[in-house]
Amino acid sequence: MLGLGIGMGIGIGKARLMLQHIRIDSREREELVDVTAQVRQAIRASGIRDGVVHLWALHTTCALTVNEGADPEVAGDIVRTLRRLVPQKGDYRHTEEGNADSHIKTTLVGPGLTLLVDEGEPVLGTWQKVFLAEWDGPRKREIAVRVVVA
Amino acid sequence: MLGLGIGMGIGIGKARLMLQHIRIDSREREELVDVTAQVRQAIRASGIRDGVVHLWALHTTCALTVNEGADPEVAGDIVRTLRRLVPQKGDYRHTEEGNADSHIKTTLVGPGLTLLVDEGEPVLGTWQKVFLAEWDGPRKREIAVRVVVA
Amino acid sequence: MLGLGIGMGIGIGKARLMLQHIRIDSREREELVDVTAQVRQAIRASGIRDGVVHLWALHTTCALTVNEGADPEVAGDIVRTLRRLVPQKGDYRHTEEGNADSHIKTTLVGPGLTLLVDEGEPVLGTWQKVFLAEWDGPRKREIAVRVVVA
Repeated sequence: MLGLGIGMGIGIGKARLMLQHIRIDSREREELVDVTAQVRQAIRASGIRDGVVHLWALHTTCALTVNEGADPEVAGDIVRTLRRLVPQKGDYRHTEEGNADSHIKTTLVGPGLTLLVDEGEPVLGTWQKVFLAEWDGPRKREIAVRVVVA
Repeated sequence: MLGLGIGMGIGIGKARLMLQHIRIDSREREELVDVTAQVRQAIRASGIRDGVVHLWALHTTCALTVNEGADPEVAGDIVRTLRRLVPQKGDYRHTEEGNADSHIKTTLVGPGLTLLVDEGEPVLGTWQKVFLAEWDGPRKREIAVRVVVA
Repeated sequence: MLGLGIGMGIGIGKARLMLQHIRIDSREREELVDVTAQVRQAIRASGIRDGVVHLWALHTTCALTVNEGADPEVAGDIVRTLRRLVPQKGDYRHTEEGNADSHIKTTLVGPGLTLLVDEGEPVLGTWQKVFLAEWDGPRKREIAVRVVVA
């Protein structure tokens, strides 16, 4: 890290400190939106080759997860099963917005993810893709990103 | 980081390495306890302006989550729905303490959280608050905290 | 960090950047496999005393969790309850491999974990052990590990 700081100068230093944001528009009430390409782009923009990337969804009714991206029915099965376990209509007390279920799904899946970064790329298994898990769309969503050097 | 290390000297260096602890007393068997203020305080104490804060609940029957803090019924709906999905009384084999459900809820919600830190503050959406999710209280609970510079 | 970099030279620097891997063979379709010893070993190999260790399961049908390790029935209750909530046979559309449930359990529990590291050891509560949560075994599994200095 010392070498990087000295050799590459203030440009990289500033990129490293900069908080980035991934913005997406979801299209369904509940869906998994693949954001892997945007995560790769954010790592590249940071200039960091070895470290970790921290992702944080800035909302209380969507989450982040990693799962299979090859067969879209995997994402579909995740959405349908969460809907079965925590249905939209239920015995809830947060009733004004009709999205109590979305808040609960967000806590079950979690709003943050930390991926390892190696040689400028996220460390992912063959089938792994990064998804925003939308539970109360369609909406504009924002994921804050910070890449930290190892 | 180089500038910080040299310019601010050993005082900041020590604060940065120091592991901190947030201590709380829960009051119910199951509840979400807002610890956002204590997390802000821990970031301030670290002296770190840009980085991430790692939180870890040192227990096997409570977890950490982030969700809406404005309407307390959101937290209530989360607790009641988890109770419906994983009731206290069930066909469990870890029976001596009567808290098998608390262990399961802890794995579903997760004992750790990493928040981004920007300009000395946690990066949170408008409605996001940090909660300890108590599943086997009332108890004394401890969250270990480490702030890492970007 | 400055002192470490200068004092210990390039050897530690290289160890720190090196991505490590924990390899395990699971024995059941669904089980929790204790990997705490391997995590301790990876921290030691990094040479890092104060920081965090990031763990990432490189698969879409197993996850990582921390829970009680003293009574093995806790892990058993977690497995059996997840099986009740998300049974292997169900109304799924990802049907070719018969493991739609394994993907869903992976998203519920999560493929990544970040543990705090203090004085060369993971910061864990008295009863906490680190587990790979296998949902589609028996299989060879791999966890990528990166230790980041504070």
